[in-house]
Amino acid sequence: MRAAMAAAEVGDDVLDHDPTMRALEERAAGLLGVEAMLWVPSGSMGNLIALMLHLGRGDRFLAARGSHVLEAELGTPAWLAGGMPHPLEWTGRPGRISADDVSAFAASGAPYYALRTALLCLENTHNFAGGTVTPPDHHALLVATAREAGIRVHLDGARLWNAAAALEVPPAALTVGVDTVQVCLSKGLGAPVGSLVGGSASFVAEARRVRKMLGGGVRQGGVLAAAGLVALDRMGDVAADNANAATLAAGLADLGWEVTAPETNIVLASVPDVPTTLRMLDRVAVPAVAVPGGVRFVTHRDVSATDIAEALDRIKAG
Amino acid sequence: MRAAMAAAEVGDDVLDHDPTMRALEERAAGLLGVEAMLWVPSGSMGNLIALMLHLGRGDRFLAARGSHVLEAELGTPAWLAGGMPHPLEWTGRPGRISADDVSAFAASGAPYYALRTALLCLENTHNFAGGTVTPPDHHALLVATAREAGIRVHLDGARLWNAAAALEVPPAALTVGVDTVQVCLSKGLGAPVGSLVGGSASFVAEARRVRKMLGGGVRQGGVLAAAGLVALDRMGDVAADNANAATLAAGLADLGWEVTAPETNIVLASVPDVPTTLRMLDRVAVPAVAVPGGVRFVTHRDVSATDIAEALDRIKAG
Amino acid sequence: MRAAMAAAEVGDDVLDHDPTMRALEERAAGLLGVEAMLWVPSGSMGNLIALMLHLGRGDRFLAARGSHVLEAELGTPAWLAGGMPHPLEWTGRPGRISADDVSAFAASGAPYYALRTALLCLENTHNFAGGTVTPPDHHALLVATAREAGIRVHLDGARLWNAAAALEVPPAALTVGVDTVQVCLSKGLGAPVGSLVGGSASFVAEARRVRKMLGGGVRQGGVLAAAGLVALDRMGDVAADNANAATLAAGLADLGWEVTAPETNIVLASVPDVPTTLRMLDRVAVPAVAVPGGVRFVTHRDVSATDIAEALDRIKAG
Amino acid sequence: MRAAMAAAEVGDDVLDHDPTMRALEERAAGLLGVEAMLWVPSGSMGNLIALMLHLGRGDRFLAARGSHVLEAELGTPAWLAGGMPHPLEWTGRPGRISADDVSAFAASGAPYYALRTALLCLENTHNFAGGTVTPPDHHALLVATAREAGIRVHLDGARLWNAAAALEVPPAALTVGVDTVQVCLSKGLGAPVGSLVGGSASFVAEARRVRKMLGGGVRQGGVLAAAGLVALDRMGDVAADNANAATLAAGLADLGWEVTAPETNIVLASVPDVPTTLRMLDRVAVPAVAVPGGVRFVTHRDVSATDIAEALDRIKAG
Repeated sequence: MRAAMAAAEVGDDVLDHDPTMRALEERAAGLLGVEAMLWVPSGSMGNLIALMLHLGRGDRFLAARGSHVLEAELGTPAWLAGGMPHPLEWTGRPGRISADDVSAFAASGAPYYALRTALLCLENTHNFAGGTVTPPDHHALLVATAREAGIRVHLDGARLWNAAAALEVPPAALTVGVDTVQVCLSKGLGAPVGSLVGGSASFVAEARRVRKMLGGGVRQGGVLAAAGLVALDRMGDVAADNANAATLAAGLADLGWEVTAPETNIVLASVPDVPTTLRMLDRVAVPAVAVPGGVRFVTHRDVSATDIAEALDRIKAG
Repeated sequence: MRAAMAAAEVGDDVLDHDPTMRALEERAAGLLGVEAMLWVPSGSMGNLIALMLHLGRGDRFLAARGSHVLEAELGTPAWLAGGMPHPLEWTGRPGRISADDVSAFAASGAPYYALRTALLCLENTHNFAGGTVTPPDHHALLVATAREAGIRVHLDGARLWNAAAALEVPPAALTVGVDTVQVCLSKGLGAPVGSLVGGSASFVAEARRVRKMLGGGVRQGGVLAAAGLVALDRMGDVAADNANAATLAAGLADLGWEVTAPETNIVLASVPDVPTTLRMLDRVAVPAVAVPGGVRFVTHRDVSATDIAEALDRIKAG
Repeated sequence: MRAAMAAAEVGDDVLDHDPTMRALEERAAGLLGVEAMLWVPSGSMGNLIALMLHLGRGDRFLAARGSHVLEAELGTPAWLAGGMPHPLEWTGRPGRISADDVSAFAASGAPYYALRTALLCLENTHNFAGGTVTPPDHHALLVATAREAGIRVHLDGARLWNAAAALEVPPAALTVGVDTVQVCLSKGLGAPVGSLVGGSASFVAEARRVRKMLGGGVRQGGVLAAAGLVALDRMGDVAADNANAATLAAGLADLGWEVTAPETNIVLASVPDVPTTLRMLDRVAVPAVAVPGGVRFVTHRDVSATDIAEALDRIKAG
Repeated sequence: MRAAMAAAEVGDDVLDHDPTMRALEERAAGLLGVEAMLWVPSGSMGNLIALMLHLGRGDRFLAARGSHVLEAELGTPAWLAGGMPHPLEWTGRPGRISADDVSAFAASGAPYYALRTALLCLENTHNFAGGTVTPPDHHALLVATAREAGIRVHLDGARLWNAAAALEVPPAALTVGVDTVQVCLSKGLGAPVGSLVGGSASFVAEARRVRKMLGGGVRQGGVLAAAGLVALDRMGDVAADNANAATLAAGLADLGWEVTAPETNIVLASVPDVPTTLRMLDRVAVPAVAVPGGVRFVTHRDVSATDIAEALDRIKAG
């Protein structure tokens, strides 16, 4: 990847001339089945731009409880996009929301209350629920319900590649009917920096302007786009990350840990003493962070099957 | 009241000279046990100013599910105050939240997620839960929990007078420990316009500036303040409204309606066909509005016991 | 006026039923030649709502140097309406801007810079320039220039009545071609509270919602609307205020003061020692406030010709 | 530079562990004489973060007419930072502002108007004035004046390297007394992406959070930081760009063009027909963009002395 970066043909992307960036954006749009996409420095910026363009002043948006936009974007959906979040409860399984709830809460209020609901924000995989997937049929049902209620749909697909690999469907099977989608090139795909957000061509035209507003317009983005193109080549590799997570979870369960059965590359473990556990894990080099009541492991391309095996051995050894 | 308005001594309140306004603000501060208060044109503005001054960019605030700030202020807590709402579930009874939930969600996130929780927003009575009250002991527990967690407390007391009457305590018993409080002079107290928001003197000084920003600084507010002073005299009268609501609920129950047992001046009725019911009620002059799945009756000083009896007769007659 | 307030027929204006308010809004719309108007608690809120609805994120707006929206609304055009102000220089006379400047700066930037200019904000009379008027022909030229450039026009007509009286034209002669206009019922017309903002019916529909957002939706506004209707009856009385200002200016000039020749009801005087002058004026009860380098007198309906004569006598006596 | 990027040691900079990024930020802080700095994806984001942290709701800030923050950041100083810009006129020479004007407009208004002035925003070199420099003595006078008036100072130093080279002083001579400064690694220094913003350590701590809010927190920023470190090594090279601009201007003047005498690496030329001129220049590969009434040339490290000579030859040939 760094070789590709070193060799990239570049232009000034603020002036919209960078050829490598254009190639990346067009290829991603094709993969995801949308008209156009735009490179952004981070998934947070991609989500933020989408929310900014979908939401009017004070509009309500729906999102599954624990969504990244609700919990991990520092409140920008409210203070920058001006939206009033409405968390939907999980039904049946972690991270899963029901079409009935979408339907019930998509309705805007009476003229007196007049809170307008404008957007459903999906997340696939749902990160904080443990990397859980929404399969194509349920995705389609949610989108159809939202459209019927007259609200738009944004998909936070930061980890869409993992969902597609786990479900053995192409990524575009999981973007059907959405107005906008965001995908990350870092994380599983291993680019050092960058995400893409897209939808219609007119959305992207306005998103380009908002990206500049937020300070995300970069000069010679071709270097980063080159990394992004390599990252897209690796789309299929995330299946290995999913497999590694399964191995890790099974191994931890064998050691008596209380862990989730991972659907993709995330393993949630409940632990009685989070700080002590993290210190121990730090020594054995398994990537983990604290979450309420436990720790969260994420496998990615720099974590090999050997690393997992070794880590389990060391944890066992204490 | 209109006689008092006609005779009011006035000054220019933007320039902070209106003597009647000062008298109103000082008297209300005394009644509520806070250092200072500020007149505002509406309860929504009072709540908004408090949230604006308590919340930093993107800060999270906690509020009971269905709170007025969540449902009926057009998303301004998000887009104007920049806050990220986090609804707390009701526990045990409608509108009641638990100290455990306050404690759990008051904690700010890890540096990585870093969503900061800054405020607990209480509402007493809780309007959309059906005018339910929070008694002094539970109020004190919630406030103490919030303070222990290092977050502030705002009390939306638009209907605080009804809570005080129902609980037979002075209003100040229900403001113990809050940082800020808002109370309405219209609604139960019958002033044509106006609310008050207050707390420390420094809060009010800054609130005065924000009020002007929002366009709520009025010239000769003394006319309105005169009405407000009369309204405060009537604080005790809301007990009659509570009683009328009880009569209405009992009467409707006798007629086979599915109604809540009102704690104050609000009666919620589940009805199968809301529009038809509202049309019928419009003919019999009982003040009612649509809510999800039913209608909501609110008694106030212009609804007499006779009105209630008459309305019940007509509903019975169909 | 207070008698009218005491007798007003009222409804709940948030629910849009107040009959007196409707009468006021319709009458003002007729007087100003616009489709519809909306009562708001203050001129600042009227201007703010107009700017909020005209400006997209970061859009530039043009306004004469020293305009009320630039200097006296606490920066809300920027932080609440999100607009980037661009002051236009005065040309020829205080407060007057040129069509050439409107034309030059109305052009939006190249795609790279891409600052969009969206609005021209006029003020008639121009308060801080000394209550100076823009006559119908120049007004029409400015509006036509703005329209040709594809930008909208808002008129801050807080003192439009004084301009109309001075020019001896009906107020509607000074609103020709504007998209929105704001006029005050307090100030010269003597209502205790309130302004009106309006334009197209669709503007007013959305403005009504924004008014509620800002906390300017009042319950029984009819009391205030009754005062507003009386205020509109007094539209012609401001000619006397203009005359009183002329008398005051002439008298001060005779006493050796350096004063502007007032076009309406405002007199600007340059004074060497502002605080001392203000203390002296406070004793003689002429309404005056400090401005940079001097003091500003404003005559209104509570300042009679006798008051002016008496004040001049006392100033002369020292 | 790309070799350095390919070899960079990286960590996760959102989690604040990237060693190369830290090295870059520390080195830049040293060069600029501030406590700490933070990498950001663009100069616009650097300026925006500074304005966001310096300005309260609606606060006024001063900046020279034509400043980048006023003209080329899409109004974000208003709608994102909430600030009310006040352009200061140029005095004596393009882009130069006077200490007297700073002093006059730094004063906050009377309580009634109450617009607060909070910040002076300098730009060195001043881009749209033609890359003009502010020398250390005048810089110090402006800063001292601002501090005396109780307002803060931010320096947009996107092209500070060119100013330092032209003045033959170290960059830190041009940051004396500022609260915050932003410098670009792209543009003259040739990094593909990135700028730095800094000041006190506490400013940077909060800026890091705001950067994440805006979506500028990148994962493995080390790759970009490696490029930034190489860029800083090239600080002195911009003297050649300044020299090339001088050659270009002299050559164009010889050909009869009306051009500014460049102080750094920017040449402004007045031309009668901008589009035609740009099409011609496009053929001869001199980097130029349209500005009002002319074209603007910018020399940078990818434009050699040979390129300049060749371009002049071709322009001469027509």
